[in-house]
Amino acid sequence: MTQRLSILGFGGSLRKGSFSSSLLRAAAGLAPQNVNFEIFPLNDIPIYKTDLESDMPEPVRQFKQKIREADALFIVTPEYNHSIPGFLKNAIDWASRPHGDNSFDGKPVAIMSESTGMLGGARAQYHLRQTFIFLNIHAVNRPEVMVGNVASKIDDQGNLTDEKTKDFISQLLKALVDWTIQLNPKDAD
Amino acid sequence: MTQRLSILGFGGSLRKGSFSSSLLRAAAGLAPQNVNFEIFPLNDIPIYKTDLESDMPEPVRQFKQKIREADALFIVTPEYNHSIPGFLKNAIDWASRPHGDNSFDGKPVAIMSESTGMLGGARAQYHLRQTFIFLNIHAVNRPEVMVGNVASKIDDQGNLTDEKTKDFISQLLKALVDWTIQLNPKDAD
Amino acid sequence: MTQRLSILGFGGSLRKGSFSSSLLRAAAGLAPQNVNFEIFPLNDIPIYKTDLESDMPEPVRQFKQKIREADALFIVTPEYNHSIPGFLKNAIDWASRPHGDNSFDGKPVAIMSESTGMLGGARAQYHLRQTFIFLNIHAVNRPEVMVGNVASKIDDQGNLTDEKTKDFISQLLKALVDWTIQLNPKDAD
Amino acid sequence: MTQRLSILGFGGSLRKGSFSSSLLRAAAGLAPQNVNFEIFPLNDIPIYKTDLESDMPEPVRQFKQKIREADALFIVTPEYNHSIPGFLKNAIDWASRPHGDNSFDGKPVAIMSESTGMLGGARAQYHLRQTFIFLNIHAVNRPEVMVGNVASKIDDQGNLTDEKTKDFISQLLKALVDWTIQLNPKDAD
Repeated sequence: MTQRLSILGFGGSLRKGSFSSSLLRAAAGLAPQNVNFEIFPLNDIPIYKTDLESDMPEPVRQFKQKIREADALFIVTPEYNHSIPGFLKNAIDWASRPHGDNSFDGKPVAIMSESTGMLGGARAQYHLRQTFIFLNIHAVNRPEVMVGNVASKIDDQGNLTDEKTKDFISQLLKALVDWTIQLNPKDAD
Repeated sequence: MTQRLSILGFGGSLRKGSFSSSLLRAAAGLAPQNVNFEIFPLNDIPIYKTDLESDMPEPVRQFKQKIREADALFIVTPEYNHSIPGFLKNAIDWASRPHGDNSFDGKPVAIMSESTGMLGGARAQYHLRQTFIFLNIHAVNRPEVMVGNVASKIDDQGNLTDEKTKDFISQLLKALVDWTIQLNPKDAD
Repeated sequence: MTQRLSILGFGGSLRKGSFSSSLLRAAAGLAPQNVNFEIFPLNDIPIYKTDLESDMPEPVRQFKQKIREADALFIVTPEYNHSIPGFLKNAIDWASRPHGDNSFDGKPVAIMSESTGMLGGARAQYHLRQTFIFLNIHAVNRPEVMVGNVASKIDDQGNLTDEKTKDFISQLLKALVDWTIQLNPKDAD
Repeated sequence: MTQRLSILGFGGSLRKGSFSSSLLRAAAGLAPQNVNFEIFPLNDIPIYKTDLESDMPEPVRQFKQKIREADALFIVTPEYNHSIPGFLKNAIDWASRPHGDNSFDGKPVAIMSESTGMLGGARAQYHLRQTFIFLNIHAVNRPEVMVGNVASKIDDQGNLTDEKTKDFISQLLKALVDWTIQLNPKDAD
C-alpha cells in the first residue's frame, strides 16, 4: 500500500478529562505510519431538529464533510444506561440527514467502548452496530475492544498507561486498515 | 380505585407537527377518567454534559421533578437509524443523573413507537427496554403498540384519525394502569 | 410471609460438569429458608417441531407442568455465539407452545449467566429479556449477575467456591422473592 | 464475472409446509444464472452437546462441510418468541464448533425472515446479526427483507405468489452476489 489511508475518529464524551477522549487520543497515537488519524470533537453539535435540516448548523456541516472525506471511521464510546450515550446518537442522527444524504454510506468502521465497570461498555457497542445496518456502515468484527475498569488504566494527565489495552487498540487499528482495503481494493493501489 | 393516578407522557419529537407528538396528545385524550395525563415537552433539554450536573439546567430539573411525582410514565418515540432518537436518549440520560439520583427508579412505564414504514419503530422500543434494566423501570409487556404507516393515520391538523390505533392506545393505557396498581397496591386504596 | 414460595430453576448446559449447572446447584443451596428451589434438567427436551405439538413429548409436558406450578423461575445460562444457547432457546420455545398455552404467562423470573471470558454471558441475558416481552415474563432488574472467568470460581467437584459470586446469587434470590411478592401480594398472606 | 458463485441456503423451519422453507425454495428459483444455490435441510441436526464434539454427528459434519465449500450463505428464518428459533440457533451453534473450527469464518451472508404478523420476523434478524460478530460473518446490510403477513403470500402448494416479495428476494440475492465479490475480488476473476 503506497497511498495514505485517512481515519476519522470521534465519540469520546463531552466531559472534561473523559476516558473515551483519552482512548481516542491513544488510538491516534497508535495509528500505523501510513494512516492519517484525525479526531473530530462533537462538543458543538446541537440537538437534532428536523426543522434545522434545510440550513444545517455549521458544526454538523463540518462533521458530515469530514466523514465523507475519510476512508474509514473509528468510534470510541462510553455507555450510558446500557446503551449509546444520547449525545453520540444525536451526532450520528445529524450526520445521517437529510434524507438521501447519509454521510456514512458504505464506510468501514471500527468501534471501541469503555466503562468503569466490568463490561467495558459492551452494550453500547451492540446498539451502535444495529444503527450501522440502516446507515450502511461496514463494521470490523474483531477484535471487540471493551475497556473495563477504565479508571485504573488512564493516568492523571489523561494518558492511557495500560499496555494490554494499547495492544488491543493497535490490533483494532490494523484490522480496520485491512478491512478498508478489502472493501475498497483501489485504496491500496 | 378511588385515588387518581398521574401519568407523565414524554417523547414525541422536536419536529413541528411531529407524528409522535400527535400520538402523545391522542394518548392524553384517551386516558381513563381516573387518570391525570400530563405531557412534558423535551424541547428545552440541552445536550447532556457531566460538568453541568453540579448545577442542573432548569428544564432538566423540572423534568426530573415531574418524573418523580408521577405514578407512571408513558413514552412515545419515533425511530432514528434503527434505534432510540438521540434527543430522547439524551433526555433520559439527564433524568438518570447525577449518580444516586435516578428519577426513574422503580417507575412503571408503557411505551409506544411510530414510523412511516412498516415496522412502526419496533427497534427503538427494544433498545429503550434495555435502558430500563439499568434505570430500574418496570415496563408493561403488552400490548406492544407500534404504529406503522403513521402518516396515513394522522390528519392535517395533527389529529389521530385511525380507530384501530386509538383502540390499541386505550388498551395500552389500561394495561399501564393495571400494572401500576399491581406494582403498588397502595395506589389503589 | 408464612407461605413457602416455589422457585423452578433451569438452564444449565448439557455438558457434563457444566459451569451453569454448578451455578444452578449453588443457587438451590443458597435459597432462603422459606423457598422451595427445584431444578428441572433440560437434557431430554427434543428439538421443537410444530408437528409434534398435538402430542407433546413427555419431557416437554413435565417441563410445562413444573413451570405452571412454580411461583417464580430462576434461569442460569451460558452464552453461545453472543446469544442464548440453541438448546435453551429450544426448551423455551417448547414451553411457550401450543398457541394459547404459554406456560410462562405472568411469571416472575431472575436470570444469571456465566462465561469463561470477561463479560460473563451478558449478551445472552439481553436476548433472553427480549423473549420475555412476548412470553409475558416479568424479570427482576437488579442485581444483574454475570459470572465472568467462571472456570476460576468453581472447583473440580463442580462446587462454586467464589464468595463474591455466592453473595451476588443470594442477593438475586432475595430480589426474586421480593419481586414475586410485589407482583402477587396474595403469595405472602 | 465468469466463475459460478455457490450459495448455501438454510434455515426454513421444521414444520411441514413451513413458510420459511417456501421462501428458501423461492430464493433458489430466483438466483441469478451464474449462481449455484443449494438448500441444506436442518431436520436431522440433533441438540448440541459439548460431549459429542469429539465425534461429530454425521448431519453436523455435512452441514459444516457445505458451509465451508460455499462462497456465500443465505439464511431464511421465522421468529419464535421475539428471537431466533431454538432449532436454528442450535444448528448455528453446532457449525461454530469445535473451538478453532468455526465453519462460518469470514463468510458473506444475506438474511431474510418471515412471520404471519406485521413485523415479518425483524427481531430474529437483529439477534442473528449479533451472533455474526462472534462468528466473523459479514452480512449484507440492504435490502432488509422481512416478509410480514406471510400466510397471504404463499399458495396451498407452498409457492410464493407475491410479486413484490419476489422482487425483494431478487434484490437481496443480487446484493449478496455483489457483496461476495467485493469481499473476495478473486471470486470474480
